[in-house]
Amino acid sequence: MTKFVSPGRHLLIDFWDVRHLQDAPQIEHAMRDAANACGATVLDVILHSFGDNAGITGVAILAESHISIHTWPEINYVALDVFVCGACDPHKALNVLRSTFEPQREHVQEFHRGKMEM
Amino acid sequence: MTKFVSPGRHLLIDFWDVRHLQDAPQIEHAMRDAANACGATVLDVILHSFGDNAGITGVAILAESHISIHTWPEINYVALDVFVCGACDPHKALNVLRSTFEPQREHVQEFHRGKMEM
Repeated sequence: MTKFVSPGRHLLIDFWDVRHLQDAPQIEHAMRDAANACGATVLDVILHSFGDNAGITGVAILAESHISIHTWPEINYVALDVFVCGACDPHKALNVLRSTFEPQREHVQEFHRGKMEM
Repeated sequence: MTKFVSPGRHLLIDFWDVRHLQDAPQIEHAMRDAANACGATVLDVILHSFGDNAGITGVAILAESHISIHTWPEINYVALDVFVCGACDPHKALNVLRSTFEPQREHVQEFHRGKMEM
C-alpha cells in the first residue's frame, strides 16, 4: 500500500464579523496562546499596526513554522494561517483563535504541505 | 451579475529538489527580491537557522501581508507562502523564488483569501 508523509500541516483560516481586529496586545496574546495550545515553541512575534482605524499584520515565528495574522477592520475580516510541523495539532490553535476572535462566519481549509509518497 | 472581491491573494508554494536550503543570506536576498518584484513593501525580515544540516525558517513582513519560508534540507524541500493584497501580483514573486531555488519539481496553489460577494 502506498504511504504518504507530509512535513507540515497548514490551516488557512478566514474569519468574518469578529472582535479585537485592532487590539495589538490581545492579538499577540492570542497568537502565543494558540502556539502553546498546539504544542509549538514561539521564537519571535512581530506585529505592525497601520494606525487608527486600519489593520494589524503580524507573524509568530515558531520552531515548528508560523502563525500569521492580517486584519481588515474596514470589512470586519481577519486572515489567519497556522502552519506547524511535527506532532503539533493546528486544530488546537484554531480553537484558541476562535475563542479570541469569536467569528460569526468562518472558512477553514487544511493542507498537508510537501506531501510525498514513501 | 454577482461580483466578488478578495482582500488578498495567497500562493502556497511547494518546491522539491532545490538549492540554497541552508543559505540564510541567499534566502533573505530572495525574499526581499520577491517582495520587490511583486510591488510590495518590506517592513521586516526575520530568519532563524536551526543549525548545521538543519533547516531555516523565516518571514518577510510586508505592508501588503507576508512571504514565509520553511526549509527541510533532509528531504530537499521548501515550503513558501506569498500572501499579498492590493495591486501586488504574487506570481511575479513566484518567478523570483523559482529563479533562486531552481526546483526540479513544484506544486503551486492559489487562493483568494476572504472572498466576499458584493
